[in-house]
Amino acid sequence: MTSKIGLAVFGMGKMGLEHVRNILRSPRASLRWIVRENVEEARALTSSYNLDTRCETPANAQVAIEDPNVEAVLIVSPSSTHEDLITRSLHAGKAVFCEKPLTTSIQSTRACYDLAEQKNKPLFCAFHRRFDPSHFSIYQQILTGSTGPVRIVKSTSRDFSHPPIEYVKTSGGIFRDSTIHDLDMGGWIIGSRPTSVFAQGHAHKDELKGASDNDQVVVVVTYENGAISVIDNGRWCPFGYDQRLEVLCEKMQLSVENRGANHVVSGTNQGMLQSAPEANFMRRYPEAYANELEHFLDVLEEKDELRVTRRDTLQAMRLADLCYESLRTKTAVPYTD
Amino acid sequence: MTSKIGLAVFGMGKMGLEHVRNILRSPRASLRWIVRENVEEARALTSSYNLDTRCETPANAQVAIEDPNVEAVLIVSPSSTHEDLITRSLHAGKAVFCEKPLTTSIQSTRACYDLAEQKNKPLFCAFHRRFDPSHFSIYQQILTGSTGPVRIVKSTSRDFSHPPIEYVKTSGGIFRDSTIHDLDMGGWIIGSRPTSVFAQGHAHKDELKGASDNDQVVVVVTYENGAISVIDNGRWCPFGYDQRLEVLCEKMQLSVENRGANHVVSGTNQGMLQSAPEANFMRRYPEAYANELEHFLDVLEEKDELRVTRRDTLQAMRLADLCYESLRTKTAVPYTD
Amino acid sequence: MTSKIGLAVFGMGKMGLEHVRNILRSPRASLRWIVRENVEEARALTSSYNLDTRCETPANAQVAIEDPNVEAVLIVSPSSTHEDLITRSLHAGKAVFCEKPLTTSIQSTRACYDLAEQKNKPLFCAFHRRFDPSHFSIYQQILTGSTGPVRIVKSTSRDFSHPPIEYVKTSGGIFRDSTIHDLDMGGWIIGSRPTSVFAQGHAHKDELKGASDNDQVVVVVTYENGAISVIDNGRWCPFGYDQRLEVLCEKMQLSVENRGANHVVSGTNQGMLQSAPEANFMRRYPEAYANELEHFLDVLEEKDELRVTRRDTLQAMRLADLCYESLRTKTAVPYTD
Amino acid sequence: MTSKIGLAVFGMGKMGLEHVRNILRSPRASLRWIVRENVEEARALTSSYNLDTRCETPANAQVAIEDPNVEAVLIVSPSSTHEDLITRSLHAGKAVFCEKPLTTSIQSTRACYDLAEQKNKPLFCAFHRRFDPSHFSIYQQILTGSTGPVRIVKSTSRDFSHPPIEYVKTSGGIFRDSTIHDLDMGGWIIGSRPTSVFAQGHAHKDELKGASDNDQVVVVVTYENGAISVIDNGRWCPFGYDQRLEVLCEKMQLSVENRGANHVVSGTNQGMLQSAPEANFMRRYPEAYANELEHFLDVLEEKDELRVTRRDTLQAMRLADLCYESLRTKTAVPYTD
Repeated sequence: MTSKIGLAVFGMGKMGLEHVRNILRSPRASLRWIVRENVEEARALTSSYNLDTRCETPANAQVAIEDPNVEAVLIVSPSSTHEDLITRSLHAGKAVFCEKPLTTSIQSTRACYDLAEQKNKPLFCAFHRRFDPSHFSIYQQILTGSTGPVRIVKSTSRDFSHPPIEYVKTSGGIFRDSTIHDLDMGGWIIGSRPTSVFAQGHAHKDELKGASDNDQVVVVVTYENGAISVIDNGRWCPFGYDQRLEVLCEKMQLSVENRGANHVVSGTNQGMLQSAPEANFMRRYPEAYANELEHFLDVLEEKDELRVTRRDTLQAMRLADLCYESLRTKTAVPYTD
Repeated sequence: MTSKIGLAVFGMGKMGLEHVRNILRSPRASLRWIVRENVEEARALTSSYNLDTRCETPANAQVAIEDPNVEAVLIVSPSSTHEDLITRSLHAGKAVFCEKPLTTSIQSTRACYDLAEQKNKPLFCAFHRRFDPSHFSIYQQILTGSTGPVRIVKSTSRDFSHPPIEYVKTSGGIFRDSTIHDLDMGGWIIGSRPTSVFAQGHAHKDELKGASDNDQVVVVVTYENGAISVIDNGRWCPFGYDQRLEVLCEKMQLSVENRGANHVVSGTNQGMLQSAPEANFMRRYPEAYANELEHFLDVLEEKDELRVTRRDTLQAMRLADLCYESLRTKTAVPYTD
Repeated sequence: MTSKIGLAVFGMGKMGLEHVRNILRSPRASLRWIVRENVEEARALTSSYNLDTRCETPANAQVAIEDPNVEAVLIVSPSSTHEDLITRSLHAGKAVFCEKPLTTSIQSTRACYDLAEQKNKPLFCAFHRRFDPSHFSIYQQILTGSTGPVRIVKSTSRDFSHPPIEYVKTSGGIFRDSTIHDLDMGGWIIGSRPTSVFAQGHAHKDELKGASDNDQVVVVVTYENGAISVIDNGRWCPFGYDQRLEVLCEKMQLSVENRGANHVVSGTNQGMLQSAPEANFMRRYPEAYANELEHFLDVLEEKDELRVTRRDTLQAMRLADLCYESLRTKTAVPYTD
Repeated sequence: MTSKIGLAVFGMGKMGLEHVRNILRSPRASLRWIVRENVEEARALTSSYNLDTRCETPANAQVAIEDPNVEAVLIVSPSSTHEDLITRSLHAGKAVFCEKPLTTSIQSTRACYDLAEQKNKPLFCAFHRRFDPSHFSIYQQILTGSTGPVRIVKSTSRDFSHPPIEYVKTSGGIFRDSTIHDLDMGGWIIGSRPTSVFAQGHAHKDELKGASDNDQVVVVVTYENGAISVIDNGRWCPFGYDQRLEVLCEKMQLSVENRGANHVVSGTNQGMLQSAPEANFMRRYPEAYANELEHFLDVLEEKDELRVTRRDTLQAMRLADLCYESLRTKTAVPYTD
């Protein structure tokens, strides 16, 4: 048997379960530990798949972190636990794959990257959309130069229905929790330094108003090369999980359309009805989640370099912070690191 | 004032009215006569447009036919009147534009073409679909050779709702009245001689069963070059006037999709709803009707040759006749002239 | 002959010619005068259509304006001539149909409306997009209440290639010349009072930089009811005349997609290629130009009220002015009348 | 650990590997055996996934067949081996999942079903398309009655490039190897007894002509209820693996469109380019392969009845045989069992 890369997964909500499945599918990874509060569910899972994976509660996380068979950890637990887990894992010499946000502040995120550099271990902030085949193919095509320079990047990102209010309240707000993906996409595709940020927003749903958050925001980011990113991000959408991207370049426009839940068209005298988009991120981005794991394994095997860098992560976080400042001042806030 | 081509129109139902409007729009044509039973309506029209066009009933058609200011006639009256009007017009030395069918039998159509040749006047059977910009662009692209040879031509043609039963009863049957357009399209695009015809059909609607006609037919025509034409033609369709064409060539596939009545998409949790196709031939093919008139004027001005030849018309009629034979014998009937 | 509404057209560039054609097509309108610099071209046209329309140069415009057979004037001449022609026509007791902008300043536009009210004559600012069947059907659907309140209106408007630089230089700038259509659309669909305007822009093309104008702008307008309008407006586009609208409402999303130049799809191993959008406003909006004329005739016949009001026109102009202020101050400028 | 359903897989080409992956993903199945000629590859696979699955060559298949831990076998080996494996497995009391065709003749297939009934074990002919979510959703919608009766079923099925000639030569011909899927679809969706079959075909590719097979066929099947199935099936296609279905019902039309390989649209002045369809059955039908396995497991757990019955399989095989007869006699051959 070939030697495989041992992994420990912290957290096994919907997203953690997706990562677990991808690990099982990957011949080069081996799932050594699942660490989660409800350890019984984790055991039921490993048992149903006939796995020898060990399961523990977060209280005993250190055993997993220090297991010499574990080469890397995947952190999919609540955001408030990230900083501690990242730090302990890096100290134990493990590579880290972590769902966004790495931590809840720019300062602590910077410290985590410092530690990763010091330990010479990869710290991967999993901005999954970059790993979606459609998004990635656009990115690659632009890199070739055949499209000419990017002029406008417009992204539309809407949940089908807003997350539970309890989640919203602790999420850091829509800009840090949701818009950050679009802010990262814009910077990734434009490949230039931001110069200003302008944000607008409104709370249409009473529940979200109560949580002092907006459920619909519009953000305009300008970049040094003259490109502009326009973001339309909302917590709800009447027709599904709306995930679209449109990149106007000098020589062509590249768009990523929604993925229909199926390929059926029904024709009646009311019109031609196509499937609504997939209902949530799990169904829209399965390839992205699989690809980002494979990318992380490539980095561990030194076949690739991290595609999401320290600079990328910090820039997206900074832009999210500046959105709040713009909202408060009603101005286009200059971008500074 | 420039000298214009004088025209007389026989018949002014919906289709005739469309031709009248196109004549008014064309700077090189002049509408001299409208001949129709309800002459009052014709007069109301010419009056509302402030025209000096003369209006007469069919009983007095000969005055229009013999008017030296009339260079050509457009015959848009009921099919049963075509043969007589074509013959009289050609005898009077007029060019003839006639809606399909030229006459109700191959024999008499052949005689009309003989007369046209003898009189050296164009006789144009207006297979309008050839003049639709989308259809024509496919035809032209195939002619360039860039598509490689044609392998399969599939056409789908369905009325939104069947024509009045009284019309159906005198229409000559679905193959001669409706399928003939698809039979012409297949031959036009494939550009090879038919070798066999197979037809199937069914009457789903009781009204049409009563008229001894089918309301849904399928026809398969083979051609000498190995290409196959597959026709799906029906008298009704739940979502609109369904007019599609699909041409599989060696190097690419070319399709003509339906034209939506508008460009609106409505997204709900039921899906994404696009406009149904246009509801009828008047709304689907306005450019085709305008273009076929312009083509006829080009022929009159000797700028072009007739794009629908004697051979084309006779072939389409012959194929329609053979459909009935195939239906009766349940075999693929060999094509003979 | 029925009595028809006598019209005089001032200006006969591409747009004027379109109006002339629509007048000819309309049984209730009669084209009495064409006034334009190149009077020979106007005469060639009237001659080719066999019209008794009189043609004059602008120097002799007053004859047309005062002709008692003229009930209304259509002003399609350069913007700098509008104010004078509107004023003279209203003074002569004529109704006025005028291409946007009515005049080059809010103050003078206000004065024109004052005069129209005083003379009790309609003054119609032809924001044509409102009369496009797709746009109008969205507007109507929202009015019914079935869509729920509007949340976001996103419009994308791009020329295929920028207008001649000489035109751009005198156009008043992209916001007043082009974005104004989107500013009007947003207000029309949202139906609430603007509260703030934010604008960003960039000149990517050297020619336009030279003209001190931007060729790509993004505008965000907020409204009292919480709705937000996001405008992406540019002077060029790599794939055609890009005209899209997307309206997110509480219960559904309504979009207007581009209209393809034809309905052909070509399938190769490179993918499925559909027609690019129509190339310009003449080809995209023919129904809108016809409909706005019919609307104007309806108003003249007192069958309808002006669908573009004084308030609408002034609001769109004011928003365009504020875009420049926002650009200068880098802030969201509060909306004031 | 829960008790799982033990499975043995015979054959592990591309298709077998897909089934193996689906078994690994399913918590209720356990892969006990892989039997294939190249047993080393099978061992490499089980080793890379850390499985305790045993691997053997076909010569030693009987050990796997008789293993009491094996409840069911999946036969994905070459068609010529099916009959023997089905028979031995049923005799050993195992349930059987077998790729189409069950055997190479109707007679021996009938005998296999007789044996399955005698042994009271399910024999599942895996017509995968029925298990595609889009196809299945159409089927279900028709069953509800909301669509009205089916009138026309049109299926288009084309390989991107033809299979290796060696495969074609032993495949039983295009009708038995490929069209059989469309023949099954038609019968499944129409749900009535066939009454006649008409087939046409042509060999455009010299290689296939050499193999005495056609590479493009058209088949028309009529059914007792008046519905007609029209099949366009080819061995090659210029733009990808073309898999479309269109069902015209009395009240609506239901279509399954191709699935694009991604969701990117590129706009240039050549037009709007969408992704070509997926390139092959592995990429087009992954859900179908997973679903048919789950269905088989449901049948084993007595939660469902076989969705592909003896009658279904025999009807599709019979129709394929009759296609050859129709081709030979150039007639619509009456359907008999």
